[in-house]
Amino acid sequence: MNKKSIGFLSFQIGLAIILAVPVFGNTSPLPSWKEGTTKSAILQFVAKVTENGSPDYVPSHERIAVFDNDGTLWAEQPMYFQAIFTLDRVQALAPQHPEWKTQEPFASILKGNVKEALAGGEKALLELVLATHAGMTTEDFRKTVTEWIGTAKHPKTKRLYTEMVYQPMLELLDYLRSNGFKTFIVSGGGIEFMRPWVERIYGIPPEQVIGSSIKTQYEVREGKPVLVRLREFNFFNDKAGKPVGINQYIGRRPLMTFGNSDGDFQMLEWTTTGEGPRFGLLVHHTDDEREWAYDRESHIGRLSRGLDEGAKRGWTIVNMKADWKRIFSFEKP
Amino acid sequence: MNKKSIGFLSFQIGLAIILAVPVFGNTSPLPSWKEGTTKSAILQFVAKVTENGSPDYVPSHERIAVFDNDGTLWAEQPMYFQAIFTLDRVQALAPQHPEWKTQEPFASILKGNVKEALAGGEKALLELVLATHAGMTTEDFRKTVTEWIGTAKHPKTKRLYTEMVYQPMLELLDYLRSNGFKTFIVSGGGIEFMRPWVERIYGIPPEQVIGSSIKTQYEVREGKPVLVRLREFNFFNDKAGKPVGINQYIGRRPLMTFGNSDGDFQMLEWTTTGEGPRFGLLVHHTDDEREWAYDRESHIGRLSRGLDEGAKRGWTIVNMKADWKRIFSFEKP
Repeated sequence: MNKKSIGFLSFQIGLAIILAVPVFGNTSPLPSWKEGTTKSAILQFVAKVTENGSPDYVPSHERIAVFDNDGTLWAEQPMYFQAIFTLDRVQALAPQHPEWKTQEPFASILKGNVKEALAGGEKALLELVLATHAGMTTEDFRKTVTEWIGTAKHPKTKRLYTEMVYQPMLELLDYLRSNGFKTFIVSGGGIEFMRPWVERIYGIPPEQVIGSSIKTQYEVREGKPVLVRLREFNFFNDKAGKPVGINQYIGRRPLMTFGNSDGDFQMLEWTTTGEGPRFGLLVHHTDDEREWAYDRESHIGRLSRGLDEGAKRGWTIVNMKADWKRIFSFEKP
Repeated sequence: MNKKSIGFLSFQIGLAIILAVPVFGNTSPLPSWKEGTTKSAILQFVAKVTENGSPDYVPSHERIAVFDNDGTLWAEQPMYFQAIFTLDRVQALAPQHPEWKTQEPFASILKGNVKEALAGGEKALLELVLATHAGMTTEDFRKTVTEWIGTAKHPKTKRLYTEMVYQPMLELLDYLRSNGFKTFIVSGGGIEFMRPWVERIYGIPPEQVIGSSIKTQYEVREGKPVLVRLREFNFFNDKAGKPVGINQYIGRRPLMTFGNSDGDFQMLEWTTTGEGPRFGLLVHHTDDEREWAYDRESHIGRLSRGLDEGAKRGWTIVNMKADWKRIFSFEKP
């Protein structure tokens, strides 16, 4: 081979590499999703709404994708992570509240009897939330959440809670954004509990977070304005509240909706009964080795009606054990 | 001159043109704003938060700019345009409400006595709003607004209301977006009254509109889910409610805030007392030939405290008559 042909060959190789990069890049999006019907359903839907000339083409500004958080983007066992935060706050605030030593549900928590404390059901939990999430400024609450999320560890994995996010879902968020989608969180969790960290972890800015909230009040204290968190609920963004929250914050119907429990049923229903192409997906927790396996009987993230009706409504059901190569990013790829 | 030097010269000219294009492009943003301190204040602020290496540099994802609507982006005289819509709706719905013939404030409106109808103050107006804005699905309300905004004409100018938008503010919205800002509306007006048309007119998508709202409820009617607008107020996004609304929807403090009345005072205060560079601006209606002149004594868009305190708080006050070459885009440039 003479110099000229070597030169030509290396030019060809160079060209091949340049041309191949985008091709190889496109053949394997969602690397943590196993090949199969679930992954194909996502890729085919995105292709049909984004490809120019497709009869189902949707312009970029209408490509809204909404994600539940607990059990959909990060784990939710052995209990919602915000509930663990709440219990930790009761411990931290106890010195300022000597009356909690004898007052339920606080007394049980301080004695380490969480189950007993939560035996009062939703009422007890909401009382705990108001006692620990209200009475301070939004700025002070943000600092408290930021400190906790940066240090507290999960009781089983001993990982930061922000490490307990699902690698396949992180890839999905990136993939949708790279296809012109605007990604939102629509969670039953507290909006101000999520905002301090979701931009760093999920790439979702605070203005694209919808959640439950308590009322706040504007006050000027010694010349400095603050927003004070009041002991009064404002909005429950769960179940039939989710489509209400979506309408209130986004003002248009999503194109794609991702959830994992019956608390997401109505937002999937609202999404997938819209005109034109729509996509609904439920994450089914089926892996008791790498994560947890639970559905119909679980108090946390109960999934029953979604399993009964999802398939006939055309929703995609993710079988975590079968469909995900990796669950958490700290697992070996 | 030999060929070589001609070639060099044309290379230099070519280079000069290439280099000059962005320079010329930058010398005249905001063409409807007269040169002067007001325009300079805007340009200088945007330069200092966007130029790489500037000590006041702010990354793009934190560049939030919020705009009041009535009196800031579009006109608000002789009364808020949504109030005119409300009166038109009373007329349109009257055949379905024979009881309105004798029931105030409806009876006065149907007789053409608007002043008398509104003599009941805010209570009468809110009753009219609930009677005309609730009881239908969000989709039906959207259609009603879309039809009205596409056909109804302003009583004085005989223009569509969407033509009554301020040309200098349209240029400002574009200018800020081209500098990486995300633009939001933060209005006392109804969120669902604005969303159907603001994307087309202002380039602001529905998910970046914050406004007053009534409660909605999710229902499945004959297998089809709908959101029903209830006869109950949800949130008043005015005065001290504006920073509350900003926090609820956006979750971070704006960098720039634009208003025109004392209803915007608290959101300017909230914005400009934040850390780092912040910008507040009030549009002062001073032109009774091309628009309207009003401030301290006006029932609509009253501006008094803002005039008293704005300057010492470092806010920029726009003198519409002096600062704007054009007010409406239908005027000759």
